[in-house]
Amino acid sequence: MSKQSLQQNLKERGSEGHHPEVLILGAGRMCEPAVKYLSDGKFITWRLGNPHTHTIHVPVDVVLASLFLEDAEKVVEGIPNATAAQLDVSDGARLRDLISEANVVISLLPANCHIPVANACIELKKHLVTASYVSSEMALLDDKAKQADVALLCEMGLDPGIDHMMAMKMIDEAHARGGRVQSFVSYCGGLPAPTAANNPLGYKFSWNPSGAIKAGRNSAVYLYEGKTVEVAGEDLFASAVPLRLQNMPVFALEQLPNRDSLSYGNLYGIDKEASTIFRATLRYEGFSEIMAVLVLEHLLSQLPDIPTKFMTTSGANTVSTTWITKKLAGLSCCKNSSVALRAANCIRWLGLDSEENVPEACKKSAFDVLCHQMEQRLTYAPNEQDMVLLHHELEVVYDDGHICEQQTATLLELGETHDRDIELLLRPQSAMARTVGLPVAIGAQLLLFEEVKSRGVLRPLCSEVYEPALEILAALGIKLEEHIEKF
Amino acid sequence: MSKQSLQQNLKERGSEGHHPEVLILGAGRMCEPAVKYLSDGKFITWRLGNPHTHTIHVPVDVVLASLFLEDAEKVVEGIPNATAAQLDVSDGARLRDLISEANVVISLLPANCHIPVANACIELKKHLVTASYVSSEMALLDDKAKQADVALLCEMGLDPGIDHMMAMKMIDEAHARGGRVQSFVSYCGGLPAPTAANNPLGYKFSWNPSGAIKAGRNSAVYLYEGKTVEVAGEDLFASAVPLRLQNMPVFALEQLPNRDSLSYGNLYGIDKEASTIFRATLRYEGFSEIMAVLVLEHLLSQLPDIPTKFMTTSGANTVSTTWITKKLAGLSCCKNSSVALRAANCIRWLGLDSEENVPEACKKSAFDVLCHQMEQRLTYAPNEQDMVLLHHELEVVYDDGHICEQQTATLLELGETHDRDIELLLRPQSAMARTVGLPVAIGAQLLLFEEVKSRGVLRPLCSEVYEPALEILAALGIKLEEHIEKF
Repeated sequence: MSKQSLQQNLKERGSEGHHPEVLILGAGRMCEPAVKYLSDGKFITWRLGNPHTHTIHVPVDVVLASLFLEDAEKVVEGIPNATAAQLDVSDGARLRDLISEANVVISLLPANCHIPVANACIELKKHLVTASYVSSEMALLDDKAKQADVALLCEMGLDPGIDHMMAMKMIDEAHARGGRVQSFVSYCGGLPAPTAANNPLGYKFSWNPSGAIKAGRNSAVYLYEGKTVEVAGEDLFASAVPLRLQNMPVFALEQLPNRDSLSYGNLYGIDKEASTIFRATLRYEGFSEIMAVLVLEHLLSQLPDIPTKFMTTSGANTVSTTWITKKLAGLSCCKNSSVALRAANCIRWLGLDSEENVPEACKKSAFDVLCHQMEQRLTYAPNEQDMVLLHHELEVVYDDGHICEQQTATLLELGETHDRDIELLLRPQSAMARTVGLPVAIGAQLLLFEEVKSRGVLRPLCSEVYEPALEILAALGIKLEEHIEKF
Repeated sequence: MSKQSLQQNLKERGSEGHHPEVLILGAGRMCEPAVKYLSDGKFITWRLGNPHTHTIHVPVDVVLASLFLEDAEKVVEGIPNATAAQLDVSDGARLRDLISEANVVISLLPANCHIPVANACIELKKHLVTASYVSSEMALLDDKAKQADVALLCEMGLDPGIDHMMAMKMIDEAHARGGRVQSFVSYCGGLPAPTAANNPLGYKFSWNPSGAIKAGRNSAVYLYEGKTVEVAGEDLFASAVPLRLQNMPVFALEQLPNRDSLSYGNLYGIDKEASTIFRATLRYEGFSEIMAVLVLEHLLSQLPDIPTKFMTTSGANTVSTTWITKKLAGLSCCKNSSVALRAANCIRWLGLDSEENVPEACKKSAFDVLCHQMEQRLTYAPNEQDMVLLHHELEVVYDDGHICEQQTATLLELGETHDRDIELLLRPQSAMARTVGLPVAIGAQLLLFEEVKSRGVLRPLCSEVYEPALEILAALGIKLEEHIEKF
């Protein structure tokens, strides 16, 4: 867009000194980067006649609405142009009141709350942005949204979100050069930063671990060298394999197949050409071997009054690691004695070796005990960082199939820390909050300034969205390193 | 020390409104944390009748002397109580003038400059602190220093330095509990932080790489389960083995034996009891395999006019990775095709595949070309961080040998970064500068305030030094995580 048309746009929208308004629903962990970025009014423009991006300032009023007013108030405190509002999303009248004041709506509510919000947006002719997957109910709103000239821009976070954008940029570029994508492999993980991965699992939870533990039993399906591979839920942990990223040899990683990879062939327009389509979740190496032992042992013993098999009631530290290791080594879920030792070490780390650690209320089942102890012992300390790692790897062949390229793109984002000397940055933002919150905010800007003209249910799969969004993200420091290797 | 005696001390030393003075020789990369910390005047006291440390302020004047005045001026700019001085250390009169003004001297000069400084310190009865190994010449000054009531506190950096302190704390504590140290294993590495390890070697150089490349051919000797193991220089890279640190499963590391580990048995007083004494250097996994190929290929071809075997003179990118891989796979230094591929990838990354990258002046030998390209391509960008990782692992047995403990201590220190919002911290300090510069500064404080009363050539091996030094380091955020596991 030219500078002139952008300014014209803004003049029309910001009539009589009113700033355009973005309504954000949900004051959870992801909202703060979005609120700060939008209210700051920074808008990074591109394509202004030269290859560099420019920053112009377009103040935006942000209204942050949450069920408990104080949650939103805490976030907006000290942020100019941002105000808090109370909203019970089941109160349709109140919801419509808030939406009618806004130019664009962002929903960071749980995915199951998006439909009434989307319906209200269509009714009031306002665009909506979410970071959630397009549900079947959301997909059904496509026609209605188009008729109302409304965009419902979904999957505009990290995963889904930045992963889509980068994948489509790489695929579109390969196609434009006349290539065929022979293999598409994508890895993504939200992990503790190195200094925070200070436990035997190399993992921490930002919220209740029960969902994450159960996700360890999701089934998966993917395409590998022309063959469809299915992984049953109970085999997921056992299917993890070690992974090193080339040009980033630091991390001892492992990959777990991530649900249904097959659908991405169609979504990315490579189903006719790719013989490998594989999406995986990243963990630090060793996670799955230990989790297999812990989860299988504990899920299988979900009977009441059997808290765990390795506890002593006679006080902490009376059971030795050697004793637990020996007990574990006899179990079928334990591959070998090295795994048994590491799992035993983890059991002691989690305090699963002593009943005294666990409050009575949690002793309903061994699974409850595991969740409780993980929530207690595997959480981030206030000064600890998280980390986001996203890596795409494409094999592209040209013409006669003789020329083969490996194209990679890697995003490594670390959470912010308090500075040693300067305590001004009172609320460091996590990597996850920035990589989810900034894309949704950018999505709202692109709709606000009419950079995105498509309507209906959208994903960031077309260049209209991903080109500006990736450039703005890069200008904000969220930059994917791209590398092409010829073979 | 009691608060009263400390204040008495300071009164005597800071007579007539003069602050005590520390002279620092050498304005290289390590000095800034020392200058800042000392001139800030923070002194963390301990043993003041309760288990917590306290901070008191004791302003110290710092004089930073360097060969080129402007190097020192750049460092002291904006730091109160710090001034710059010019010094050619071979100018004995000027050296003695500067030393005579100071209460304690810190030498951060190259190790071969310490002897004239130490002699001048003995002559003028001033204490000296260095971060260098005790050389045989330095050891000979022990008697002279004692007669002059002077301390020459050496090995007061990271490695040697913090590694000594932590080792002796663990060993002394084990002995005090009646234990015998059966195994002492220590790993230390200065590495790029994860985001900066963005190249196939996972390594970067802060200075000319030729020394580091040649160090890859140092021979090594260590004690393993009662047997002395010798590694010849040309086998060093091949002797590297993968390593994961328990409770820090993030890093894909490898270990290389670090010169003479045997001498540490005597130094640490465990030569009569330990059957394993092993010190190793840390790199990210894969480093040694690639370096073996690069260094062997290039050191062995140190003839003039043979720049490298993989170059084309017909422009960059005309040699494919596959072609280089095939050439490498035929070499004896290349273990297998996977190593060949990674080495080929690295050769291209370094630009060793095209003569056009290398200026004429560097084409004397293939080794020169390798050094030049590594210096060009493997350096830290201004916003990139380094990382220091130190890990000790002791096995301690008690009484009857039935009780066995594994004791670990781990230091993970990351270099500072520029903050996203705040640009005040103009010169972020590297992890290496902080872990070397702060211990020497603390050493100077301990001598200044008469906390260390021993004289002669000293290492931080006795509790008189390591107890306060480790506590002050911890208060400054350089904290070793300790863990004891019973078997």
